[in-house]
Amino acid sequence: MSEVRRDIITDTWVIVDTENDKIPKLPRIEYSRSDRCPFCVGNEAQTPSEVFAIREQGPRDGPGWQVRVIPNINPILKAGGELMKSGVGVYDKVSGVGASEVIIESPEHIVNFFELSEEQIGLVLEAYRQRILTLHRDQRIRYVLIFKNHRPQAGASTIEHTHSDLIALPAIPIRIKQKLSGAKEYYEFKERCIFCDIIKQEIEMADRLVFQNERFVVITPYASRFPFEILILPKEHSHSFSLIDEGGIKDLAKSLKRISKTLSDVVDDPPYNLILNDCPNLFPRADYWKTIKADFHWHIEITPRLHRTTGFELGTGFYINRYAPERAAAVLRSNL
Amino acid sequence: MSEVRRDIITDTWVIVDTENDKIPKLPRIEYSRSDRCPFCVGNEAQTPSEVFAIREQGPRDGPGWQVRVIPNINPILKAGGELMKSGVGVYDKVSGVGASEVIIESPEHIVNFFELSEEQIGLVLEAYRQRILTLHRDQRIRYVLIFKNHRPQAGASTIEHTHSDLIALPAIPIRIKQKLSGAKEYYEFKERCIFCDIIKQEIEMADRLVFQNERFVVITPYASRFPFEILILPKEHSHSFSLIDEGGIKDLAKSLKRISKTLSDVVDDPPYNLILNDCPNLFPRADYWKTIKADFHWHIEITPRLHRTTGFELGTGFYINRYAPERAAAVLRSNL
Repeated sequence: MSEVRRDIITDTWVIVDTENDKIPKLPRIEYSRSDRCPFCVGNEAQTPSEVFAIREQGPRDGPGWQVRVIPNINPILKAGGELMKSGVGVYDKVSGVGASEVIIESPEHIVNFFELSEEQIGLVLEAYRQRILTLHRDQRIRYVLIFKNHRPQAGASTIEHTHSDLIALPAIPIRIKQKLSGAKEYYEFKERCIFCDIIKQEIEMADRLVFQNERFVVITPYASRFPFEILILPKEHSHSFSLIDEGGIKDLAKSLKRISKTLSDVVDDPPYNLILNDCPNLFPRADYWKTIKADFHWHIEITPRLHRTTGFELGTGFYINRYAPERAAAVLRSNL
Repeated sequence: MSEVRRDIITDTWVIVDTENDKIPKLPRIEYSRSDRCPFCVGNEAQTPSEVFAIREQGPRDGPGWQVRVIPNINPILKAGGELMKSGVGVYDKVSGVGASEVIIESPEHIVNFFELSEEQIGLVLEAYRQRILTLHRDQRIRYVLIFKNHRPQAGASTIEHTHSDLIALPAIPIRIKQKLSGAKEYYEFKERCIFCDIIKQEIEMADRLVFQNERFVVITPYASRFPFEILILPKEHSHSFSLIDEGGIKDLAKSLKRISKTLSDVVDDPPYNLILNDCPNLFPRADYWKTIKADFHWHIEITPRLHRTTGFELGTGFYINRYAPERAAAVLRSNL
């Protein structure tokens, strides 16, 4: 049997197969390895010059760093130039202004994110925070997206050394717009944050709760689009990742290490994407965003890519999920 | 350089690399073949009993058919049962009522759609039309999606014998909702159909025009999400595929054969999805849809899957397209 479940934030629907108990699996595709990894310490000269680093010692572009941020060598958006909007007949375009960066998460050659220490993951999160704060000072930038592609089937580049991608955009992504407007509508109706309500319900119901610690809760969302989809939320309401404090970073690092290790154990090192869903850059249109502090709540999604999307997903924007989130949460819990 | 282009119908953005001239390519994955194809004539007993067929002769579930429609053996939605909406705390669900069918496009074992004769493609289109008309009589059905998954990387099943999928849904897909509301807004503002305006502009500008015949136009859309994305539109305004007449079917069959053959020649038999974007079932809420005849215009999308989607697409709903549609149209035109 299947259920059609609505994602109440984005108004998309997912057809969930509630019967199947076989974990879906794609044939494995390996990274194509190269002899010398440009992301390893000592090979800094093989990459563009760093835009940011957390270092214990050493000069710019030399060894001594713990986390290093560089421009993407194949950038899809470039810094510099004015934000130009123009029409092409009935169509609209914006010049490709923005930024494409890579966050190298460790000086050592580590492939799996969960093999980083909690302290190191904390430094990666601090690098995220610093880059967002810096890029939000540029009012041409409307949104900073930070994400990870783990393994080729999740769109990873040929470089296996653990890293995150950052793309700063001159427009707010439609998925974020949907979340912002869904959250705003709910707040206007209920005068409560929709994410806070979800946290409360998931902790009470417990069937999709994977674990929680003092500051974070880790669940498999009700309308999971993918088998073993994960949602990580700060328990205390906050609209912006950049406001996270030291204790928050510590608990988030702990949560990320634990869930990505468990996921890897249970589903055999699956390809996945990790996506930081932060608020937009509020600086260019502060008036417009005046309710956002109350109605939006930042969060992290982890989406394992265990099956291929078909014409159904492309044609509808809906998803078919052949492994129910309640089952996924139970399996994850018993392997923590 | 890149441009950020807006899809004016759905309000999504695509970052188009306007410089790259190398056609992207994924490593090829073959179908896993089985000895006996259940879709071939003579093997009807290996499939569920047909729900519809176009036959020259013979009884139900026997040979003599030209196009055969069967229930999907692994249905994600089942016919029968009431449409039940219910709440789960803050969440909503609908019971999984609908239909999952497979349209077998030829009695012979043909793998590539374009190898079918124009007459045979016409019969396939007639089967689409008949199934839509029949399923629209059921007011629990809100949308009938017909699509093709060609090759494994486009989500094809293990069966290589050319076929289409049909899923009848109890909710209108968000992508269709976006198109309906984009088209409606444009009509309210301009009192013209947005698709008719696009057709006019593309024929005039000609840089994204692949070809046209009497009744159809084939273009690479301005905000193409994928390299070699194709859009096929009837030149004469029509909100519903089911209103197509004999001449229309003939010209559409001719267009589909020609574009899928050329695509296969140019990009080496790529994985692709084909999606029929039809109007929703108007029967359950006729009043609500009273402007749809003027503002919506049915169309077919073909989306080659030449690269993997990453956390960027998942996190934003935006796309990165590394091969400009103007280049794709030029290459296709010179290989017609």
